[in-house]
Amino acid sequence: MNMQRPIEDYEVGYDIPAAIGMDESEIQTPCLVLDLDALERNIEKMGKFAKDMGVRHRVHGKMHKSVDVAKLQERLGDSCGVCCQKVSEAEVFARGGIKDVLVSNQVRDPAKIDRLARLPKLGARTIVCVDDVDNVADLSAAAQRHGTEIECLVEIDCGAGRCGVITTPEVVEIAKAIDAAPGLRFSGIQAYQGAMQHMDSYDDRKAKIDIAVEMVRDAVDTLKTEGLECDIVGGGGTGSYYFEGNSGVYNELQCGSYAFMDADYGRILDKDGNRIDQGEWENALFILTSVMSHAKADKAIVDAGLKAQSVDSGLPTVFGRDDVEYVKCSDEHGVVSDPKGVLRVNEKLRLVPGHCDPTCNVHDWYVGVRGGKVEALWPVSARGRAY
Amino acid sequence: MNMQRPIEDYEVGYDIPAAIGMDESEIQTPCLVLDLDALERNIEKMGKFAKDMGVRHRVHGKMHKSVDVAKLQERLGDSCGVCCQKVSEAEVFARGGIKDVLVSNQVRDPAKIDRLARLPKLGARTIVCVDDVDNVADLSAAAQRHGTEIECLVEIDCGAGRCGVITTPEVVEIAKAIDAAPGLRFSGIQAYQGAMQHMDSYDDRKAKIDIAVEMVRDAVDTLKTEGLECDIVGGGGTGSYYFEGNSGVYNELQCGSYAFMDADYGRILDKDGNRIDQGEWENALFILTSVMSHAKADKAIVDAGLKAQSVDSGLPTVFGRDDVEYVKCSDEHGVVSDPKGVLRVNEKLRLVPGHCDPTCNVHDWYVGVRGGKVEALWPVSARGRAY
Repeated sequence: MNMQRPIEDYEVGYDIPAAIGMDESEIQTPCLVLDLDALERNIEKMGKFAKDMGVRHRVHGKMHKSVDVAKLQERLGDSCGVCCQKVSEAEVFARGGIKDVLVSNQVRDPAKIDRLARLPKLGARTIVCVDDVDNVADLSAAAQRHGTEIECLVEIDCGAGRCGVITTPEVVEIAKAIDAAPGLRFSGIQAYQGAMQHMDSYDDRKAKIDIAVEMVRDAVDTLKTEGLECDIVGGGGTGSYYFEGNSGVYNELQCGSYAFMDADYGRILDKDGNRIDQGEWENALFILTSVMSHAKADKAIVDAGLKAQSVDSGLPTVFGRDDVEYVKCSDEHGVVSDPKGVLRVNEKLRLVPGHCDPTCNVHDWYVGVRGGKVEALWPVSARGRAY
Repeated sequence: MNMQRPIEDYEVGYDIPAAIGMDESEIQTPCLVLDLDALERNIEKMGKFAKDMGVRHRVHGKMHKSVDVAKLQERLGDSCGVCCQKVSEAEVFARGGIKDVLVSNQVRDPAKIDRLARLPKLGARTIVCVDDVDNVADLSAAAQRHGTEIECLVEIDCGAGRCGVITTPEVVEIAKAIDAAPGLRFSGIQAYQGAMQHMDSYDDRKAKIDIAVEMVRDAVDTLKTEGLECDIVGGGGTGSYYFEGNSGVYNELQCGSYAFMDADYGRILDKDGNRIDQGEWENALFILTSVMSHAKADKAIVDAGLKAQSVDSGLPTVFGRDDVEYVKCSDEHGVVSDPKGVLRVNEKLRLVPGHCDPTCNVHDWYVGVRGGKVEALWPVSARGRAY
């Protein structure tokens, strides 16, 4: 547990949705519930996959933003550290005891660079991405100012269309600048193909990653001829980890959603054409919601709306039910179609969120349940740490 | 200010985005910025509108979730109290000193009903909505248990398609049950037509509200013949307040978004065919964001993605700029089309969020600026209070 205040200081129903030992039926909704058995199985499974492929797994902490989950991933999944997207998130993980933290993103603001340079003083190996040679001098100055070392990966945009350079000469130019800069160490390549993760077809995803792997291979090989070895070649996600893991080029995976699963990822298909939430991964994350009104015979109104989830990747599904359907979402309400009128006021439903990352970010707590009882209360430690 | 800890305890860049007196250019992004001049003008204007129409204004606190903004609305806009959607929000407002709080929603869970019944002990007039006669006994028992009084409005679904009954006989049945229940007081009608607020055309909106007003008028008149007077007939939003305010039936408005404005509301048209963000209301709320990568010539990557906003009602717009456009949103990144390559790394942009309510709910702080300087830091007091 990584609690700033003792758990007893939190008032159930006001600033925390449950208490340890409580029956699941008493949990205050809406809130996030973790099926601890499913979560542990997912974590162990991915740990084994990575080990079998001979690569490290640096779990993506931006998904869960939880020190407790990250530590579970260390313990059960043999993760080598975390990655995250913001300096303020990295601070949460480092303060919480994670010893190896990659900000898999660009850091350009002077105040943020200064904070980043102080991270090693918290005891964490500190790694960041660079996609602009102009960034190198600022990072170097900050590391020297604080007497620390910042490891740098050059970010390649291998298809996500966001940060990152797109040619090997650019990679080499930035890598050389890093290598020459006091206080910095060139540590390798960041190359995450984010745009293909949610494509349904396994073959379509493979085709995109094949392109990415060739870009990265060319960069790694060219760097080698220039005398620059890549300690880390990182990337991969829940929809692609087997491609990067078996590429012979990547040596670190960065999966996030596999641990919790969500409705949007669940729909993609494995190589045999099966949904990945029907065997490969289990739904471990749910929004627990209650029916709060049933004034109309054929629809129930539940208490989880836009302030309990993000619907950017579609509406949530109702777990384990095909007789009712979540059909509309407004600020504080969800409309659940109930054509047979089977739902009752105060009945609880488990929703599988459309998109886990931004859904976790609107909650303060994970309520871990096992056997119908609340076993864990974990803060969403880095919630709101967007800076 | 309603601070649980002194402002000095918050670390700028870690758990708070700015410090009082800071230049706007130094604010840590992404964060919410309020243009205090625009905010004050919006609040004063709506206060005057309500006064001129002879109705009260119970401001919707679920939009901003801020005790500080609610108090500004009391001071500058003569609001009579707040409404909100959850008991935990009501507790925040009552604890913060708001003396008149309506939970404009159903409360059915036993633990939540118990908390609601204790709200008057915090010094707040406590009002709730009811759409099911089965709810009355539970509310009554809780009020008696705590020796308090809960005022009840019968909720009519006048078109939003969520909670609420749809016929006058149902209204009368519930009102009579409330009136007969110890610890409860029948106080009137809640009737918010949420579904029409965002229709572009003034005439289309009016047609929907005309139907709503007739439903409410029939209920109010029928209740009167039964000896039940409505102290409160509440409803109305930023897209409709002039209809309810001039209806002769409603006596309390419940506007929220007018104070901050957003891109989705901004697009609707007033009776002269002008966008309401071009004269009627000013954009007072912005997501301040910074360019963090410009590795590709024609697009800039900014640091405000899905964890800094909700895109349920569309992407944000870039305030005051027609040369660049926010075209894509992922977890921590926004892609800004910059065809002329005018943006620079670390340049800040003000985004107008697509939908203010769920956007405010992902932030912990409002940074109030005036004349380019940080003047106020207000906590989003009820952020995350979803129970």
